[in-house]
Amino acid sequence: MTRTVIEHVLSRLREIGVDAVFGVPGDYSFAVSDAVCNDPGLRWVGCCNELNAAYAADGYARIKGVAALSTTYGVGELSAINGVAGAYAEHLPVFHLVGTPSMATQAARALMHHTLGNGEYDLYRRMSEPVVCAQAVMTPQNVVYETERLIAEAMHHRRPVYMAFPSDLAVMPVAGQAQPIESARSDPAALEAAAEAILASLSAADSACVLPGILVARTGSRAAMQALIDASGLPFATMFMAKSVLDEQQPAYVGMYDGALMTPSVREFVEGAERVLVVGSPMTDFNTGAFTARLDPGHTITIGHHHTQVEGRIYANVEMGELLELLSRKTPKRNWPRKPANSAEATNSPTGRGGDPISVDALYPRWAHFIRAEDLVVAETGTVSMGLGFAHLPSEARFHNQTLWGSIGWATPAAFGVAVAAPERRVVLLTGEGSHQLTVQELGQFGRLGMKPVVFVLNNSGYLIERLLNKEPAISYNDVASWRYTELPHALGCDGWMTARVSTCGELDDALAAAATADCGVYIEVVTDTYAASPLARKLGDGLKALRKG
Amino acid sequence: MTRTVIEHVLSRLREIGVDAVFGVPGDYSFAVSDAVCNDPGLRWVGCCNELNAAYAADGYARIKGVAALSTTYGVGELSAINGVAGAYAEHLPVFHLVGTPSMATQAARALMHHTLGNGEYDLYRRMSEPVVCAQAVMTPQNVVYETERLIAEAMHHRRPVYMAFPSDLAVMPVAGQAQPIESARSDPAALEAAAEAILASLSAADSACVLPGILVARTGSRAAMQALIDASGLPFATMFMAKSVLDEQQPAYVGMYDGALMTPSVREFVEGAERVLVVGSPMTDFNTGAFTARLDPGHTITIGHHHTQVEGRIYANVEMGELLELLSRKTPKRNWPRKPANSAEATNSPTGRGGDPISVDALYPRWAHFIRAEDLVVAETGTVSMGLGFAHLPSEARFHNQTLWGSIGWATPAAFGVAVAAPERRVVLLTGEGSHQLTVQELGQFGRLGMKPVVFVLNNSGYLIERLLNKEPAISYNDVASWRYTELPHALGCDGWMTARVSTCGELDDALAAAATADCGVYIEVVTDTYAASPLARKLGDGLKALRKG
Repeated sequence: MTRTVIEHVLSRLREIGVDAVFGVPGDYSFAVSDAVCNDPGLRWVGCCNELNAAYAADGYARIKGVAALSTTYGVGELSAINGVAGAYAEHLPVFHLVGTPSMATQAARALMHHTLGNGEYDLYRRMSEPVVCAQAVMTPQNVVYETERLIAEAMHHRRPVYMAFPSDLAVMPVAGQAQPIESARSDPAALEAAAEAILASLSAADSACVLPGILVARTGSRAAMQALIDASGLPFATMFMAKSVLDEQQPAYVGMYDGALMTPSVREFVEGAERVLVVGSPMTDFNTGAFTARLDPGHTITIGHHHTQVEGRIYANVEMGELLELLSRKTPKRNWPRKPANSAEATNSPTGRGGDPISVDALYPRWAHFIRAEDLVVAETGTVSMGLGFAHLPSEARFHNQTLWGSIGWATPAAFGVAVAAPERRVVLLTGEGSHQLTVQELGQFGRLGMKPVVFVLNNSGYLIERLLNKEPAISYNDVASWRYTELPHALGCDGWMTARVSTCGELDDALAAAATADCGVYIEVVTDTYAASPLARKLGDGLKALRKG
Repeated sequence: MTRTVIEHVLSRLREIGVDAVFGVPGDYSFAVSDAVCNDPGLRWVGCCNELNAAYAADGYARIKGVAALSTTYGVGELSAINGVAGAYAEHLPVFHLVGTPSMATQAARALMHHTLGNGEYDLYRRMSEPVVCAQAVMTPQNVVYETERLIAEAMHHRRPVYMAFPSDLAVMPVAGQAQPIESARSDPAALEAAAEAILASLSAADSACVLPGILVARTGSRAAMQALIDASGLPFATMFMAKSVLDEQQPAYVGMYDGALMTPSVREFVEGAERVLVVGSPMTDFNTGAFTARLDPGHTITIGHHHTQVEGRIYANVEMGELLELLSRKTPKRNWPRKPANSAEATNSPTGRGGDPISVDALYPRWAHFIRAEDLVVAETGTVSMGLGFAHLPSEARFHNQTLWGSIGWATPAAFGVAVAAPERRVVLLTGEGSHQLTVQELGQFGRLGMKPVVFVLNNSGYLIERLLNKEPAISYNDVASWRYTELPHALGCDGWMTARVSTCGELDDALAAAATADCGVYIEVVTDTYAASPLARKLGDGLKALRKG
C-alpha cells in the first residue's frame, strides 16, 4: 500500500534511528500524532508542554544521535522554539515535525485559532529559520526528496530541521521515489594531505596533547577518536562541553582543561605541549574558562567537522570521522610525555560528617563517589554542573550539560529524554532548585513510564549562579518560591519513590547509601547555604563579570 | 540626576500604568531587573519560567491595559515568545524588555553562552518581528524618542513591542528629551460623517442589535460603549471572545451569540435584526461558532479600532472610542425591540445530588452559581471555557479567555497576572488538568505572594477538547500523566489552602460551599467522566472537524 506523506517521513526517521517521538498533541497535528501511534516501530512520548518535549528530544538525541519532536501549529512550535535553538547550539539533529492548518484553510486566509488573526500562515516557519539548518513544507510531490534532503542536512550539520505538515497533505499518498543522499565523504587527496600534515607536525614535536571535543560525540566518532588515542599513545584532556566524551578512567586522560580557571597542572600540560590537537571543540565562553584558554595558534592543529587546519593551512572537505580513522591507522605509537597515570584529578575525599552542614567540599566529592560506571549524568547549567564537571568519572559514565546554550530548566526534561533513549542505564539528574522550577512537571513522566532515575535537587535558596554574577547577590529577583520539593514526586504521580531532604552530611550520607541500592526512583533535596558555590562557578562568575565590563 | 536608559524606559512605563514587571532574571538582563527592583514605583514579579511570565503579563494587561515582561537574551526571550505571540493575537500591549550582551561583546562576535555559537547577535530580535508591532534596540541616543514611538505603537495597535537593552548601554545616561506622542485622533469630518451614517442607518431600521467586541475592552472604551447602550436603548449580545465586556445583568443584554452552534433564540434575534452594530470584534473561528455566524453584510455596521464601515462605505481615521462617545450623545433613545428583560440565558439549575457523578449538567450550572459579582474569572481554552462561557455572569464579573490564540497552559499563569493586577478582587481560575500540567508551577506564585484565588481543576483524564476533535478519541496521545492534584498546592508552597478532590455532586456541593466562605486559597479537583464535554465543546468539535476537511 502506498504510504502517506507523514508515514513516509516517519519510516525514514525510524531507519535513521528514531524510535520515539516527543511531543504535545494539537488539532492541527493529529495527522502526525496519529501516524506515530499507528507505527509499530515508533512510540509517542507525550510531554507536559512543548518546551519540555524539545528538551527531552535534545536529551534523547544525545544518546541516539537523532530525535523527533512533534508540536502543533503556532502555540506548540513557538513554545518549543527555545529548546530547538538549544539543539542547534549544541549540535543535535532534532526533527521538528509541525502540524499546520490545511492548505485550503491557508489559502482562504481564514481567521483560525493559533493564528495571529491576520490571515498570515507562514510566519512561524520563518521564525524558526535561524534555529534550524533546513526547512520544508512536506507535500505529496516533494516529500520523498525533501525528506532525504532534510535528513542529509540535519546529519551533515548535526542541527535541527523543521518539517511542516499541512493537515490535509499529511495523509495523502506520496508520489515518486528517492534514494538516501549519501553523507559527505572526504576529498581523498585532501584527506591524505591533511593526515600527512598532521603526522609531520606531530613528528616534529616532543610533546603533544589531544583535546577531543563535543563534535566527536555528536558525529559518532568516539570509537575512531579512541582508536587514535590508543594507536598513537597521545594523552588527552577534555574541555567542559565535552566532558566524558572519552572514558576518563584510561591512563591517557590528563584531566579537565578549563583555561586559567581550574586545575593549573592540566593547564600547564595542555598549554605547554608543542602540539595541541583540537578535535571538534567550539571555543565558547564556558568551554574555555571564560576565554582564559591560551592555545598558541602556531602549535594548534584543528580538526573540524568538515575541514582541518594544520600550521595555517586549511584542508577543506575532510570529514572528521574519516580523518580520525585514517590517523588511527597511520600514527606511529610513541612514548609521548604524559602526566603520571593517576594525574587526572582524583576526586577529593569528602569533608564533613554527622551534623555538619553540607559544604561544597562535602557535597561534590560525595556526588562524584555516588556516580558509578555507565551512569548517564545530566547536570543542569549553573553551580551544579560546574561542580560535578571536575569529578573524575568512572568508566563509561557520561556527563551531559548544555554548555553553550545554557538554558536553565533544560536538565529535568533532558534527563527524561535520556532515560527514554537508554532504558537499561541509570540516569542521574542533578539540578539546582531554581532551574528545576522551570520545567518541574516533567518529573512526573518518569513515574508515568515506571522509570527509576536518581534526582538530586540542590536547594540553595535561589539562583546561585546569578548571585555570583551579580553585583548585588542578595537582590530579591534571585530568590525563588519556597517549595516542599520532596512532596513533588508523589504529587506528580511517581509512586513508590524514595525521597529525602538532607541538610547535614550525615543525612546526605544516609540518603546516598539508600539511593545507591534503591530499586525505585530516588529524589533527594540537598539543602546548602545560599552561597555554597562550586569553585568553577565562583571563578566563572568573576571571569564573566570582567567580560561583561568589556 | 540624569536617568539611565533603562530607568528612563521604566519611568515611562510607570506613567502609562505599569506597576509590576513579570520575568525571570538572567545575567544579560541584570541591568533591567536591577532597575525594576530599584524603582520604588515598580515591583519585580519573578515567575518560574519565561513562558509563564509572558502569560502572567498577558493576564495583567487584561486588567491594567498594559504590562511589562523582562527576560534574558536568547534562552529567555525565546521561551517567552509564544506568550508574546498570544498577547499579539489577543490585542494586549505587553512591553517585552530583553537584556542582551554588551555592544562590545556583540561587536567582537564572541562565542558567548545563549548564542548559537555563530557570532550572530541579531537573530532573536528578528525572530520576534512577526509577533510584535514594533521593535527597537535602546541606546542612550535613541531611547527618549524610541520609547515614545514604541509606547505609541503598542497603544495604537494594542499589541506587544520588543525593546532590547544591551547590558552596557542600559546603564548609560540618556541623551535628549522627547514628548509623548499623542494617540491618534479621529479626522473630525470623517468622525462626524461616520456617526451621521450610522444614525441614518439605524433610523431606517425597525430592529437592531449591538455586538460589542473584545476591542471595546482592550481600547478602554467600555464606558463609552455602555453610554451608547444606555442612551440609545439598543439591545446587545456578545460573542465568545468578548464575553462580559459589558455587564451581563442589564436589561439590554440579549445573551451569548455563537452563530448556529448555541442558543437559537439569540441567533434569531441577532441575525434577524435589521441592523447589527459590530464593534471591535474579530471574526475568528471560535468567536463565530466555527464560522456559522451569518451576519448579512448589507445589515452590518462595523466599528473597528481605527475605521468604521457603514453600508459599504469605509470611514478611515475614525477612532472607536471617540465614535462611541459621539454616538452616545447623538443617538436618540428608542424603544428598540428587545427580548424580554430576562431573555439572556438564565443559568440552568444544576442537576444531580449526593453520590451522583458530576455530569456536565451538574457541573457548569454549579460553577455559574459559584461566580459572584466582581469576580475575575480566568477560563482555560477547552471544554471548561466553552462550558462556562454560556453562564449568565453576575454584575461586573469578568470572563477572560484566550479565544483566538488558544494556547493551553495560558490560564494558570494568566490568573496569577490578573491577581497581581487586581489584588482587591477574587480571582477564579478554571482549567482542565491537561492544560494545567503545562504551566502548573506558577500555582506556587499565589502562595508566595499570599494570594487567595479559587482554582478549579477539571480532571477528565486527558485532553478532552482534543478527544472531541479527534477521529479516534481514545487514542493514547490524548492521555496525560495521572497526578495527585490536590497535593500540589502544599508541595508548591501554598500554605493553609483548602483543597478538595470531588467526584460526586454532594462532594462538589460541600466543596463549593466551603470555598465560597474560605479566607484562604482554594484548590478543587473536579473529577468527571472522560467524555463529559460542555455543549459548545461538543458542537465546536463537530464544526471544526467539518472545517478541517475543507
